[in-house]
Amino acid sequence: MDELKKILKDLIQLTEPEWNILKDKLIRKEFKAKSIIIREGKIADCIYFIDKGLLRTYFLQDGKEVNTYFACDGQFISSYSSFISQTPSHEYLETIENSSVYSISFATMTELYKISSKFEKLGRILAEKNYLCVIDRTRKMQILTAEQKYLDFIDGYDKKIVQRVPQHQIASYLGIAPESLSRVRRHISIS
Amino acid sequence: MDELKKILKDLIQLTEPEWNILKDKLIRKEFKAKSIIIREGKIADCIYFIDKGLLRTYFLQDGKEVNTYFACDGQFISSYSSFISQTPSHEYLETIENSSVYSISFATMTELYKISSKFEKLGRILAEKNYLCVIDRTRKMQILTAEQKYLDFIDGYDKKIVQRVPQHQIASYLGIAPESLSRVRRHISIS
Repeated sequence: MDELKKILKDLIQLTEPEWNILKDKLIRKEFKAKSIIIREGKIADCIYFIDKGLLRTYFLQDGKEVNTYFACDGQFISSYSSFISQTPSHEYLETIENSSVYSISFATMTELYKISSKFEKLGRILAEKNYLCVIDRTRKMQILTAEQKYLDFIDGYDKKIVQRVPQHQIASYLGIAPESLSRVRRHISIS
Repeated sequence: MDELKKILKDLIQLTEPEWNILKDKLIRKEFKAKSIIIREGKIADCIYFIDKGLLRTYFLQDGKEVNTYFACDGQFISSYSSFISQTPSHEYLETIENSSVYSISFATMTELYKISSKFEKLGRILAEKNYLCVIDRTRKMQILTAEQKYLDFIDGYDKKIVQRVPQHQIASYLGIAPESLSRVRRHISIS
């Protein structure tokens, strides 16, 4: 919980009394690896702060999983559009590894927004960050080669994600075939 | 200006004193049709509330314009990722028709965030709305047919945009060839 407190102090200058309000509303949850936390068609009730673990979001396209996001220790994750709009999710949220998270429900977030502008600020920053992330990804999917995409991924993503997300999951996220990713990785390690 | 006041009262329950603070910071600008307001490579200094007019954002792909967003009277527009991150824009913002807008600079927004949680709320709502819009568009681009895309467009977008944005601009937005859009429109008007 200390990690979240530290992040929120840095990010939104949360005071001790504000932290105490939030702390009491957080619910700690433990999930085994490969647990589905949010299913397609269900409304995402919560956003999760990852204390320890590795998670991904994905959707199904013609029966195939297409990864859209990875997050690990110290990061937030949800089926974000479902969470903010409170409409059925088009995605799944699943743990890749055993994970411990703190969940914040939509009702709690709405309540927090009324308590302090700091929580509105948190909501704004999360929304802006998610917007920039999806815009950046969409743009790079269009303009980068497979090798450029992979180099950008290992450069921009958390080390834990780069090292511990299985290669076929990364390939699915980058929109390239697993064999192409293997070729790219061989080429990079040679050059 | 009354329109903006009304929208903000509904959206973020802006009080009269808060409105007066904002009002003094708005700068009215007039642009002729086909004026470029933000260029690729430049940082978007402002977000614009459209009092009257029609605008679009687009980027260049292999020298071709690809539309990403349209907005008209009563709506906000900018090169949004550039505005919130204060990094060079990948897009152009251009008027389609003569337009009157109220501009709010990034510096002003930052100042407003500190004054009242209502402005943080506005920032959050704009970011969430933009996020949902881009996610929705990306998803529909992947799963809908040309006809479904067009029906979704005329159903979901403001009437003024549907009626007054040139057809080739709509085709570019929907990611379909202008000839395909003509075929779709003929098919819809017959059936």
